[in-house]
Amino acid sequence: MRRVLRDPVRLIPLLFAGLILLGTLVLMLPVSSAEGRVTDPVTALFHATSAVAVTGLVTVDTGTYWSAFGQGAILLMIQIGGLGIMTAATLFGLMAGRGFSLRDKMATRVERDRLNLADTASLLRLIFRITLAVELVVALILTLRFATRWEMPWATALWNGVFHSVSAFNNAGFSTFSDSVMGFQGDWLVLMPIAFAIIVSALGFPVMEDWREHRLDTRRWTLHSRMTLAGTAILLVGGTLVLLATEWTNPDTLGPMPLGTKVLNGFFHAVMPRTAGFNSLNVGAFRDDTLVVNYVLMFIGGGSAGTAGGIKVTTFMVLAAIVLAEVLRRRDAGMFGRRFGHAVERQALTVAFIALFLILSATMAITAMTRLRLAEVLFEVISAFATVGLSTGITAQLPAPALLILALLMFVGRVGTITAATALALGGRDRPFRYPEENPIVG
Amino acid sequence: MRRVLRDPVRLIPLLFAGLILLGTLVLMLPVSSAEGRVTDPVTALFHATSAVAVTGLVTVDTGTYWSAFGQGAILLMIQIGGLGIMTAATLFGLMAGRGFSLRDKMATRVERDRLNLADTASLLRLIFRITLAVELVVALILTLRFATRWEMPWATALWNGVFHSVSAFNNAGFSTFSDSVMGFQGDWLVLMPIAFAIIVSALGFPVMEDWREHRLDTRRWTLHSRMTLAGTAILLVGGTLVLLATEWTNPDTLGPMPLGTKVLNGFFHAVMPRTAGFNSLNVGAFRDDTLVVNYVLMFIGGGSAGTAGGIKVTTFMVLAAIVLAEVLRRRDAGMFGRRFGHAVERQALTVAFIALFLILSATMAITAMTRLRLAEVLFEVISAFATVGLSTGITAQLPAPALLILALLMFVGRVGTITAATALALGGRDRPFRYPEENPIVG
Ligand SMILES: [K+]
Ligand SMILES: [K+]
Repeated sequence: MRRVLRDPVRLIPLLFAGLILLGTLVLMLPVSSAEGRVTDPVTALFHATSAVAVTGLVTVDTGTYWSAFGQGAILLMIQIGGLGIMTAATLFGLMAGRGFSLRDKMATRVERDRLNLADTASLLRLIFRITLAVELVVALILTLRFATRWEMPWATALWNGVFHSVSAFNNAGFSTFSDSVMGFQGDWLVLMPIAFAIIVSALGFPVMEDWREHRLDTRRWTLHSRMTLAGTAILLVGGTLVLLATEWTNPDTLGPMPLGTKVLNGFFHAVMPRTAGFNSLNVGAFRDDTLVVNYVLMFIGGGSAGTAGGIKVTTFMVLAAIVLAEVLRRRDAGMFGRRFGHAVERQALTVAFIALFLILSATMAITAMTRLRLAEVLFEVISAFATVGLSTGITAQLPAPALLILALLMFVGRVGTITAATALALGGRDRPFRYPEENPIVG
Repeated sequence: MRRVLRDPVRLIPLLFAGLILLGTLVLMLPVSSAEGRVTDPVTALFHATSAVAVTGLVTVDTGTYWSAFGQGAILLMIQIGGLGIMTAATLFGLMAGRGFSLRDKMATRVERDRLNLADTASLLRLIFRITLAVELVVALILTLRFATRWEMPWATALWNGVFHSVSAFNNAGFSTFSDSVMGFQGDWLVLMPIAFAIIVSALGFPVMEDWREHRLDTRRWTLHSRMTLAGTAILLVGGTLVLLATEWTNPDTLGPMPLGTKVLNGFFHAVMPRTAGFNSLNVGAFRDDTLVVNYVLMFIGGGSAGTAGGIKVTTFMVLAAIVLAEVLRRRDAGMFGRRFGHAVERQALTVAFIALFLILSATMAITAMTRLRLAEVLFEVISAFATVGLSTGITAQLPAPALLILALLMFVGRVGTITAATALALGGRDRPFRYPEENPIVG
């Protein structure tokens, strides 16, 4: 136990598990449900996990099943979960000595294994300030818009505005509307602030730190930040174009919309699978080729050390750079005039490989127990693992064991990838000798 | 052109393309079809590619659509394609200095870029001898069994015996029976010889070479051969168990069978997706979780430098070893007391990554143009890329553009992976300087 407490990499999963259990108990209370009844443990656990892991998968309608107290509890879990993961991931990034220019400064002052408390406190203050600032601005815009254009009473508009702002910035995807934001698919002033909050927080904290220190002078940004920004741009632009192409004529999604609204919703749904989980279109009506795009976008996810899930943009970029280097017959893989270390390459591979393994295993298990359509189960499973929260609509049909598998995936996808990646980056014991090299044929 | 002719890595794809074109012309001839009519170019091209690339996907029934001449032409294409790819891959393996203990002997005698003609000739003789021996034995058993137990006329039994033997040893999956070998699902003496021929040839030539030189003294085997053998054993045993578990109660496959027949067919269908493509069960009736197992087995495929397709067993084993090394926090990834070089690790990743990219792209394209079920399109695409030849039954429903995409996948999956992997292994020009190292956060 002592060892666990002294080792934050082991402590974080325990803290998150504790938070989820506490949330489960709270959601089970009669006061949490609108009808004042006791919620069954599996449902409560599933929604507590979905909230703390900022995922957004639900089996009951957030706006009508839960009481105001219950919705408030969920929002609190989202905020604590989001801040918690951002803080933990940032500290881990510092411990592993990656992604922060600050690291270099600190390394000169402190030992590698001990973080400078002053710098750490300054980082945490920055995280809280950014969170508060973005959430306030977005909540304000949404509240005004809900009250004026959509004629909600001010109290309702405020609650919906705050809820969606917090849910968006923490990439949680929970919505108080039963059809998420589909009712606002023509409204730029609702969808764009939500997309903005999501994109910013999904960049991850290291990018914000570089922005604060160097603004647009990107040559001074860390490799991590530049890779995250470039990857995000590629995924957003590419995702929008492919999504527009595959859904353009779908009568149940983009088909009947005017041009501007098509582009707005195409963009919105390129942002969402990257981890947010709101939907302005009916995901259940997506064509199968759109599902494949979503698989890929969800699997990759957003930036490291933020509220985004997935294997992360940089992980994907490292793998892509290795492939590119091989194809171009380069000795080193790298980007922006930097080469990657061997260890990082292997860690990126490991993260992607384990993610694939978990996703395929869970897909097989849930398909076997439900006989639901494979394409939809796979969607649900990737959505859970990458803490996205999008669904083709099958969540409420799943039996308890399937929900527990999804809950486990959310937990592992949220807390597991970060702690595992950090554990890998920190290295460890090794054999005192090396075996001779020999290489098999590959391919 | 001179450069192409001097460089076998560039020559092989051209030779295969030429062979496919020639085969297309032959199959278009009226004499090739049973009804004596001209076959349309797309159908002819698709089947010529499927035969030369030893895949086995078909849109017309091999036994009834093609004349005896046409079937003979297909069998010849299979044999030339299979021998060609085995020979080419073996030579490439030697050039890249991997997988053969022989290489070390040769390296002392000749320059690295020139193969010793005597040794090469000896290798080729071995390939031909093994091919002939296995094909003869299996053809003999099958012919006898078809003639006696299944009461076919001797000429028919002989043709079916030879056809299935050649098709099996070359991992081609073509069958003269319209339901493949489903009619023999209770007959150990038909299914096991076919499975035997497939397993042996799917090990790849380097394993045969080690067997010839060292027999059971596996400590003297190359790393490549040991990894192939271990991986094959894991995939066969694991595949059989998982397949039995997922299909055990399926009324359309294993469900109604007696215990022994269940095990026989479970084993047979664990062998088939690894590249062979015969089926004793109705693949279209497989449950969705069985499809996922098949995706994985087909994607991995068989051994290098043989007639098997997929990313290859060793590629998968290298990736798995890297993940294991990371999880165990080892500095080096490796197996059997050997560590892998950095280059091989990156090549394995590159092969898997490009394969995934091609499969997902083709799946999206075909899904978009057909609106067929995603799970079945994905199955078909992996089957084509990994030159497996299994199908859930949609091949004949595909429009011409989809067939051309599949043909391209078969070609790339068969010839492309080997030549690309060799090109990578042989290395090339590089920048005269290295960038400084910097690492992003991963995961
Ligand atoms: K989410
Ligand atoms: K095949």
